[in-house]
Amino acid sequence: MARVLITTVPFGAHNRLPIDLLESVGVDFEINPIGRRLKADELASMVSDVEILIAGTEPITAAVMDAAPRLRLISRVGIGLDSVDLKAARERGIAVSYTPEAPAPAVAELTLGLMLTLLRHTHVANLGMHRGEWQRQMGRRIPEVTIGIIGTGRIGSRVLRRLVPFGTPRILVNDLEPQPNLVPELRLDWVGKDTIYREADVISLHLPMTKQTRNMIGREQLMMMKPDALLINTSRGGIVNEANLYEVLREGHLGGAAIDVFQEEPYSGPLKDIDRCLLTCHMGSMSVDCRSRMEIEATEEAVRYLRSLPLECSVPEDEYASQELQRD
Amino acid sequence: MARVLITTVPFGAHNRLPIDLLESVGVDFEINPIGRRLKADELASMVSDVEILIAGTEPITAAVMDAAPRLRLISRVGIGLDSVDLKAARERGIAVSYTPEAPAPAVAELTLGLMLTLLRHTHVANLGMHRGEWQRQMGRRIPEVTIGIIGTGRIGSRVLRRLVPFGTPRILVNDLEPQPNLVPELRLDWVGKDTIYREADVISLHLPMTKQTRNMIGREQLMMMKPDALLINTSRGGIVNEANLYEVLREGHLGGAAIDVFQEEPYSGPLKDIDRCLLTCHMGSMSVDCRSRMEIEATEEAVRYLRSLPLECSVPEDEYASQELQRD
Repeated sequence: MARVLITTVPFGAHNRLPIDLLESVGVDFEINPIGRRLKADELASMVSDVEILIAGTEPITAAVMDAAPRLRLISRVGIGLDSVDLKAARERGIAVSYTPEAPAPAVAELTLGLMLTLLRHTHVANLGMHRGEWQRQMGRRIPEVTIGIIGTGRIGSRVLRRLVPFGTPRILVNDLEPQPNLVPELRLDWVGKDTIYREADVISLHLPMTKQTRNMIGREQLMMMKPDALLINTSRGGIVNEANLYEVLREGHLGGAAIDVFQEEPYSGPLKDIDRCLLTCHMGSMSVDCRSRMEIEATEEAVRYLRSLPLECSVPEDEYASQELQRD
Repeated sequence: MARVLITTVPFGAHNRLPIDLLESVGVDFEINPIGRRLKADELASMVSDVEILIAGTEPITAAVMDAAPRLRLISRVGIGLDSVDLKAARERGIAVSYTPEAPAPAVAELTLGLMLTLLRHTHVANLGMHRGEWQRQMGRRIPEVTIGIIGTGRIGSRVLRRLVPFGTPRILVNDLEPQPNLVPELRLDWVGKDTIYREADVISLHLPMTKQTRNMIGREQLMMMKPDALLINTSRGGIVNEANLYEVLREGHLGGAAIDVFQEEPYSGPLKDIDRCLLTCHMGSMSVDCRSRMEIEATEEAVRYLRSLPLECSVPEDEYASQELQRD
């Protein structure tokens, strides 16, 4: 078994540099042979000799760590840490690193594309045209609608900045603390989440998965939304309750939704039967430049460990504290 | 038969004001009973008593005008005049008006949405997901690619302005004359069309249909493009040769295309068999605000005529001259 296991896929596919980096230190490495996100038991069965995990979003639980007695570094390709039991890692002396900045521009661009697509029902027209049906869709423009952004961190703030030249829509924003002057060119109204659910025409989520955000948007919140509201989730599966979303869409509520992330991936649930639900396959970070940067940064961290150099992308203390706070 | 025939559809569907305007002057009007773009002979059979046409993009030929001896005003809902024989209208004393500014913001927003969609292959992922297939697509971001805009008038310039906050891609632009300072925040390279075909990763067309632009992009131009280039046409059908586009896509050339306009509409040709060809139904101007503005402006012009007030949106002389120049 290899000393380095790379579970995230694709890896090194569009830019060989991360693979070259690993080869340059002469370490024995293996890339996820299953080719999709691993389940905890699959991962546990692969890690008995592994010292470094270059990890995707698969669950790295205490049980996985117990199956990996030599594991010393989890280097996450990406930002989300909901998949890693940070306390269990610390208790076992396993360092955890991540790449928080790299994916943000790619997620923000995908989100803006989804927003423009939902507003014009481009995805509905395209599905129809590929079935031989010509059904012109009437849409709306960004300056004509109220946009609600929940989560204004690295990604949400980038979405906002890209809205500037579209004119001056009403923008409602929500985060733990208001950030005045986040985007000086826009007039942002800092409001509660319920106000966004009730008043926004387009709602986009840019949140981590935590105890507070899990199932944050269920039937009650969906029904608070306008009948023609548009919902975008490019953050984490499980923040929007998928079963509830399917129910309300099937009942005719909401003008559309764009869902990139799912509770279980690959997703193959009933949302696929709803034409106005735009579905993508966890592709937020899937741009050549951002994906390469994520893979390179996570691999560089592995190489630092192998060369006994100080780590540079360690997960900060507040991530440990925040995960601890969420425990029941 | 009504004195006013409205051929464009939908009309008054999302904003009743144009219908209220017509009712306020007590004129007898009828909306296109077929509910789609009319062919010339269909239109000719409806116009024997018509004094005013509130027109879409259907062909208003000399023969149509000869079937409409009372016709005095063609008020186009939109900007394109390729469908109207301006010389024939002038010879018969028929005034022609249009709404050149109204559709531009909606077309620009649709174009930007199509660009972001093509770059991330969102449409391919969505088609797959609706068939139950999870195939993650690797894409590119705007600042990583070379963008080529052919036609930098009302719409092309608006597309460019919306690109500003995405970072600083290489942008190639082409029009009859370079316009320095068109978008001061961007460094624009004014180049020939062939340079755009050869070097751009994304090519978007914002041109009128003229003798010069008809079939402007055929097999030769398509084959000059990069194997993974992305092509967008939201301007007029027939500028890109549809049969040639289908051939090269089928052969595996080009990374994708987004086609909103077709030689014959409704379109039901073979492009529908190409997943990476994003197809919409001439929806450039189909946003509630722009569509309403177009319908209201065109109707106000009709009301001015009925009240014997001076027209305010007459087609300018240079449009007559330019159409004349294109004749063989």
